[in-house]
Amino acid sequence: MNKKYMKIAIDLAKKGKGKVNPNPLVGAVIVKNEKIIAEGYHMVYGEAHAEVNAFNNATCDVEGATMYVTLEPCSHFGKTPPCADKIIEKKIKRVVIGSLDPNPLVAGNGIKKLKEAGIEVEAGVLESECNELNEVFMKYIVSKKPFVVMKCAMSLDGKIATSYGESKWITGEASRGDVHETRNELSGIMVGVNTVIKDNPELTCRIENGRNPVRIIVDSTLRIPLESKVVTEVYKAKTIIATTKKASEDKIKILEDKGVTILIVNLKNDKVDLNDLMIKLGELKIDSILLEGGATLNFSALDEGIVDKVQMYIAPKIIGGEMSKTPVGGNGIEALKDAYKLRNLTTRVLGDDILIEGYIE
Amino acid sequence: MNKKYMKIAIDLAKKGKGKVNPNPLVGAVIVKNEKIIAEGYHMVYGEAHAEVNAFNNATCDVEGATMYVTLEPCSHFGKTPPCADKIIEKKIKRVVIGSLDPNPLVAGNGIKKLKEAGIEVEAGVLESECNELNEVFMKYIVSKKPFVVMKCAMSLDGKIATSYGESKWITGEASRGDVHETRNELSGIMVGVNTVIKDNPELTCRIENGRNPVRIIVDSTLRIPLESKVVTEVYKAKTIIATTKKASEDKIKILEDKGVTILIVNLKNDKVDLNDLMIKLGELKIDSILLEGGATLNFSALDEGIVDKVQMYIAPKIIGGEMSKTPVGGNGIEALKDAYKLRNLTTRVLGDDILIEGYIE
Repeated sequence: MNKKYMKIAIDLAKKGKGKVNPNPLVGAVIVKNEKIIAEGYHMVYGEAHAEVNAFNNATCDVEGATMYVTLEPCSHFGKTPPCADKIIEKKIKRVVIGSLDPNPLVAGNGIKKLKEAGIEVEAGVLESECNELNEVFMKYIVSKKPFVVMKCAMSLDGKIATSYGESKWITGEASRGDVHETRNELSGIMVGVNTVIKDNPELTCRIENGRNPVRIIVDSTLRIPLESKVVTEVYKAKTIIATTKKASEDKIKILEDKGVTILIVNLKNDKVDLNDLMIKLGELKIDSILLEGGATLNFSALDEGIVDKVQMYIAPKIIGGEMSKTPVGGNGIEALKDAYKLRNLTTRVLGDDILIEGYIE
Repeated sequence: MNKKYMKIAIDLAKKGKGKVNPNPLVGAVIVKNEKIIAEGYHMVYGEAHAEVNAFNNATCDVEGATMYVTLEPCSHFGKTPPCADKIIEKKIKRVVIGSLDPNPLVAGNGIKKLKEAGIEVEAGVLESECNELNEVFMKYIVSKKPFVVMKCAMSLDGKIATSYGESKWITGEASRGDVHETRNELSGIMVGVNTVIKDNPELTCRIENGRNPVRIIVDSTLRIPLESKVVTEVYKAKTIIATTKKASEDKIKILEDKGVTILIVNLKNDKVDLNDLMIKLGELKIDSILLEGGATLNFSALDEGIVDKVQMYIAPKIIGGEMSKTPVGGNGIEALKDAYKLRNLTTRVLGDDILIEGYIE
């Protein structure tokens, strides 16, 4: 029974995708006499939490009911008052929780508060599903750095382009649609300046009612062409260029005048220090990034330890070519024991393609 | 009901793997009054067919029973008399068939013969499963060329070694065990001479009671070192070296004296003509080959159109490196539309690895 209602709460939570960052996705269901009497989810960043929305939607008196909520109710005053207080006030009898809130301001205090008020509490129901739902939040709230998803599209033999450089499109429509879903859900999208020079991409989310992520261009020496779409079309989405003190001050000025945000970050090995960049992006409330960078940036990101999740879209075709580009380049690791390991590998079929996802250990 | 018994027949057929090549795998079940009264499968090349083994195992009189058989019963005299005649003689009432026999000597004649004798025949039950069971036979009996499975083991970013050349082992034990199962099932294993020079592999099947495939080395100019295991250890498995008229006659003599079989095949683009090689191997009754060749041979094999199936074992790790080797090298294709396309992609979990299999279109 617990699992059944928690599953419904999880599905409710997902409706907030792309709308609540950097808040967590939360869903809540209130059950009385084995009937659902209220549902709610966190809909908009800064506005009512899932629990409050559920109370507002209740079809009858909630006193004595059980609340199923995907994340531990908050116990602190943030943009809204503590949900734990509201639950106590509403005389809920029992609270079933999915994930504990890793937010240092909550971290068990929500449960403690409920128990002290005499409410039965059961935690950890469908916990791994609830944790996955908030993988972004779980990292960001603790580290203050964005959760980074490295996405690549390749052939079954690991090529991202033919030896002649043709790369559009390796994967099919279903895969590309799925990437746009991810763009809609995450706060930022990041590429290297070489990708901008070569492909001049828009880096927007092309789904109906979608939301464009903030475009982040890694460009140590500010080589970006002024006529790039990410520069000329800032009305479509915010563009941040991460550069270093090696950038020309004149060009910075020109780009800023065009509405681009310039972030000066530390140098590391003569390039943008990606860890410093993550700290600075975290300060700008960017809780999550889709890394669609070329082979070189992908390797740097892994090497610098900023990648949390990998998404490999694999097309049912073989391209071959000793010189064809592959998804992760750079120097590569030297010894196999130093390979970046992934855990919790899962596969999903998308049209004719297969998506393999996993988390960096 | 049909499917249930056919499934049992399929499982019986599989017991013949690695023992009946180049004959097909066949299983048969005889059912009377909804009880299985006999089971049989083709156990050893040249010996009794599945149907005959089932008759021999029958626990009661088979008259009036239904026979489920994965492949159309043969109608010709080969190494054994026609099974269709036996079925008629035994007064079976109904025959349910999986695959039609593509053997030009049978090809519907088995069914015709049964029907003419007044037996009810139903064909095409679990047909695709039965066809898959005999993917090797289905190709070989018609084309007289071996069914070629290209097998690679790579990291999730498509690398078969680190930039320093370390490649042992990328995939885990479960994957490597699975490869040995395949070596046990197929007639031959093929690599390029560069793999022999670099790794000096044994190319044997390391499973208990396993059977070693014939080792086929592609070596246009006969560069193979005389101290290679595939040369010195011919007592473990037969070794065939495919070379061309460019090979030194003295070296041919030395190798033949050591018990190695030398096949002189046509030249194509100054190298072994792989299609000619397939014809010659087919003549030697090699119905199936596991291609474990390096990147260059893999591309040539695809380019020459000899590959039927691809097995990509993918390890949950990322290696990176612009210069790291990938599974398919050579020149590669130029335009994406010319990529080698795969159909019927399936995935299987093997320990921490994922195997993606598909058939070349």
